[in-house]
Amino acid sequence: MRKLHELPTPALVVDAGALEHNLAVMARALPGARLRPHVKATKCTALARRQAALGHRGFCCATVREMEGMAAAGLGDDLLLANETLAAHRLGRLDAHVTVAVDSEPTIAAAADGGVREVLIDVNVGLPRCGCAPDQAGRLADLARRRGLRVRGVMGYEGHAMPVAGRAARKAVVDAAMAQLAAAHAQVGGDVISAGGTGSFDLNELATEIQAGSYSLMDTHYARLDLPFRPAFWVWSTVVSTSAVFAVCDAGLKSLGMDHGNPAIDGAKVWFCSDEHVTFSPDEAAAGGGLHARVGDRVRVWPAHVDPTVAYHERLYVADGDDVVETWEIDLRGW
Amino acid sequence: MRKLHELPTPALVVDAGALEHNLAVMARALPGARLRPHVKATKCTALARRQAALGHRGFCCATVREMEGMAAAGLGDDLLLANETLAAHRLGRLDAHVTVAVDSEPTIAAAADGGVREVLIDVNVGLPRCGCAPDQAGRLADLARRRGLRVRGVMGYEGHAMPVAGRAARKAVVDAAMAQLAAAHAQVGGDVISAGGTGSFDLNELATEIQAGSYSLMDTHYARLDLPFRPAFWVWSTVVSTSAVFAVCDAGLKSLGMDHGNPAIDGAKVWFCSDEHVTFSPDEAAAGGGLHARVGDRVRVWPAHVDPTVAYHERLYVADGDDVVETWEIDLRGW
Repeated sequence: MRKLHELPTPALVVDAGALEHNLAVMARALPGARLRPHVKATKCTALARRQAALGHRGFCCATVREMEGMAAAGLGDDLLLANETLAAHRLGRLDAHVTVAVDSEPTIAAAADGGVREVLIDVNVGLPRCGCAPDQAGRLADLARRRGLRVRGVMGYEGHAMPVAGRAARKAVVDAAMAQLAAAHAQVGGDVISAGGTGSFDLNELATEIQAGSYSLMDTHYARLDLPFRPAFWVWSTVVSTSAVFAVCDAGLKSLGMDHGNPAIDGAKVWFCSDEHVTFSPDEAAAGGGLHARVGDRVRVWPAHVDPTVAYHERLYVADGDDVVETWEIDLRGW
Repeated sequence: MRKLHELPTPALVVDAGALEHNLAVMARALPGARLRPHVKATKCTALARRQAALGHRGFCCATVREMEGMAAAGLGDDLLLANETLAAHRLGRLDAHVTVAVDSEPTIAAAADGGVREVLIDVNVGLPRCGCAPDQAGRLADLARRRGLRVRGVMGYEGHAMPVAGRAARKAVVDAAMAQLAAAHAQVGGDVISAGGTGSFDLNELATEIQAGSYSLMDTHYARLDLPFRPAFWVWSTVVSTSAVFAVCDAGLKSLGMDHGNPAIDGAKVWFCSDEHVTFSPDEAAAGGGLHARVGDRVRVWPAHVDPTVAYHERLYVADGDDVVETWEIDLRGW
């Protein structure tokens, strides 16, 4: 069996036990269709297959390519494009049960013209991104129905609640957002209220299904919240250079999503990242005076943001201790 | 011929005229072997082929995969891995003229054991990343020679000078760095002094060859400097949602390197980026009151940092006006 220390670096590695824990905790909290795993965080049909085996048969995607890949992998029982698109003709031809989010006349027209049959009305519940104003949801639902589309319900992502520290404070933001979504749903009708994410999976009381993705792998940002999920993945990296003061490993800007800031290395202070390097020094406040790395040592680099990190990598190595027990393709990249 | 507005988005687009301008300006300033184009910025053998056709036959790379891809593409006349590696056995088997940077006993041993024949001694000239202390360069050169390696000379990247605004201030930083490299070179010997980048291409008076890569495509960070290169590439994006206040297009954290901050959109204020979205509003101070985008409009999103942006994309579309005249694979991604 291949060993972790034999892998070429940088490499994306997931700890099998931590992943198992995260999937199991979520499946107990939100069994079956109560969870609609978001594949954007992981872009990996092999991981989605694990989620499906635990009972979650509906998925959501952020890109048309993710929808195409999930359908091709036989994971198309109930696929939601939780995003607006004008390329709906690529969805209409999929061999899958497809629903798409719409929030405007042009996106409704694209869905109808593209052969899509079912939609959710996407509602802006406070995050300035996609979604119609709540008081427009009924009008758009009527329009969609006139275009022959089945309106399954509403969607509204309270993304602005996700980074709020403290359950009570976070819940207040979630509740305010969901009050808007409930008002929109009253106009729209339908069985589905799709919302939520890893940060609100057990706080959102309105949603009929939660769109969580990051919970399976986690990242240093989500790890700051009071969540029951474990940090499960890292960029495995080799120290290639050292000085008297700092060390340098071969992860960098092309293997780490950087919008949430620098990654973390246990026992070290991260100075900065370059294209193919992280420069760090021992954190003298850490146990044993911190990490004193030598050339050739392997280090775990913990990403700050899971989604744009995964999107840089071709594959995900599943590790059990030093054994690489599976290799999964990150097969839903691109657009 | 395929048209720009027919491309699926997000898509990486380069303006053929601006690229031509940038390549020509550089080839006049640093003809032939005076420039060793860095392929890490563009990761594209088709673009490298254009540089080779202009007379630059030597290239430098940041990863072993880039070296392998360049060799396989027949661009292996003089390939430098301008980075440290312990996976030198992958270089030793290439059908190419290979040189690798070394800065320690383990990297020298890896090169010798891996079948590499030629090295540069990499010297730290002020950027805390790779490179030995200047006073160690001679010792390492001797060690390399004892291991049977040919020492071609030295390398030292003054990366800390690149973002310095103002030619005089930037030149002072470059000169201080190159004084250290000159001292190291006096100990090491050899014909090659490899250094520099897009920000110092015409300021570095010591280097026998300049390692510039970003100049061909540029980005908003390099565009702030007083350089003769034009912004040549953007992420082509479709507006998928609008509100009364803002608009949202389908570029985002997975199509843009974010370590240098938000991208730019002409006539707009960029609010923030999400995985697959940029939220922006009209810049009322701009001509015509700014960009008032409608769903379906295409917008150019100008990346802040070229290298980690390109690394997200599968291909680069070469545009002449609205015509897509060539499609180039970004074929040197991964490790």
